[in-house]
Amino acid sequence: MGKLDNLTAYQRRLTMVDYQKRNGHRSALLWFTGLSGSGKSTLAHLVEERLFGMGWYTYVLDADNLRAGLNRDLGFSEAERRENIRRVGEVARLFTDAGIVVLAALISPFSDDRNRVRALFAPGEFIEVFVKCPLEVCEARDPKGLYRKARRGEIPLFTGIDSPYEEPHTPELVIDTSQLGIDEAVRRVLQAVPGKALTAESGEYAERPFPG
Amino acid sequence: MGKLDNLTAYQRRLTMVDYQKRNGHRSALLWFTGLSGSGKSTLAHLVEERLFGMGWYTYVLDADNLRAGLNRDLGFSEAERRENIRRVGEVARLFTDAGIVVLAALISPFSDDRNRVRALFAPGEFIEVFVKCPLEVCEARDPKGLYRKARRGEIPLFTGIDSPYEEPHTPELVIDTSQLGIDEAVRRVLQAVPGKALTAESGEYAERPFPG
Repeated sequence: MGKLDNLTAYQRRLTMVDYQKRNGHRSALLWFTGLSGSGKSTLAHLVEERLFGMGWYTYVLDADNLRAGLNRDLGFSEAERRENIRRVGEVARLFTDAGIVVLAALISPFSDDRNRVRALFAPGEFIEVFVKCPLEVCEARDPKGLYRKARRGEIPLFTGIDSPYEEPHTPELVIDTSQLGIDEAVRRVLQAVPGKALTAESGEYAERPFPG
Repeated sequence: MGKLDNLTAYQRRLTMVDYQKRNGHRSALLWFTGLSGSGKSTLAHLVEERLFGMGWYTYVLDADNLRAGLNRDLGFSEAERRENIRRVGEVARLFTDAGIVVLAALISPFSDDRNRVRALFAPGEFIEVFVKCPLEVCEARDPKGLYRKARRGEIPLFTGIDSPYEEPHTPELVIDTSQLGIDEAVRRVLQAVPGKALTAESGEYAERPFPG
């Protein structure tokens, strides 16, 4: 190759399939939706730890690493929450494009917002995990003290209190954390991860038993 | 572990260092800045291909995968270009947090915007690569026909034509693509990648010769 004099627009050669072949598994987005305190983030992190332990390439997107960074300009109005979800969906698409299994844990209370994220992905790539738990149980747990604040009127538009949560109609998975033990919850999510490996030699997807 | 009844806010256990140890190299953001047609994207992709070929974990962020997705709501006003750069910096931070070497190729004409991205990273993590090339040469290449359009007044605020490009004062690297061959340009960028590996056993960073 010589100089860049006859530069043309560069055609990307590495694609998602190349990353997936190297990583040995498909990309996917596991989207954990549910009320505050339902256990979304705990579940996402525990599942990630299991996948990481198996040598998978993973990352968790949640309020901890989004609200202080990419979405720091967004408040909690309906429009801003919609934009929040849209951006997380687009970032997840970049991560899956890089061959990674992304676990996103966000309340994401509105069906339309979740479905717009789903529409960014190929069939089977987007796995909606409804982390189901009665409001009373979530409020009794109140791990971050947010329900207490919301009841005192210190957090406006708090989901479940003065803003609705729209339950998913046909999620890929429902995990009722008021009923299931945590080990069983993790096991069920792992079973829903696309358990397929790419065979580097053939370039074909080959079924392999899920090692969990 | 039992039920989630006594849920507390989950403390993340997997950190950037865990991902880096597994991947066998440090995370970094290589930020390619320069005029349209200077060769930023070509260089970023060729460097990525070399790193990928060495078994590194990499991803390229450029106009191709950002403008149609995460930043589709942004136009080209000064404020929107600033927000564009801010978001790319934050996304790059998530990728480096996941242990990946990110290569971002964007004109990013304003020093303040680039320095705000730099401030998100630890010393040594952010590597500014100034892809230097005279405007006349870029305009003669015009790989996407954008300069012709800009000269006809069809693209307002086009960098180099009717919007300024602020050269980096102290970039980590300057690559003059009007002088260097492409192989030499790639070699110089590779030499600037943090050539350190994490030793999984000791948990320490160990110097290792850069395998390029």
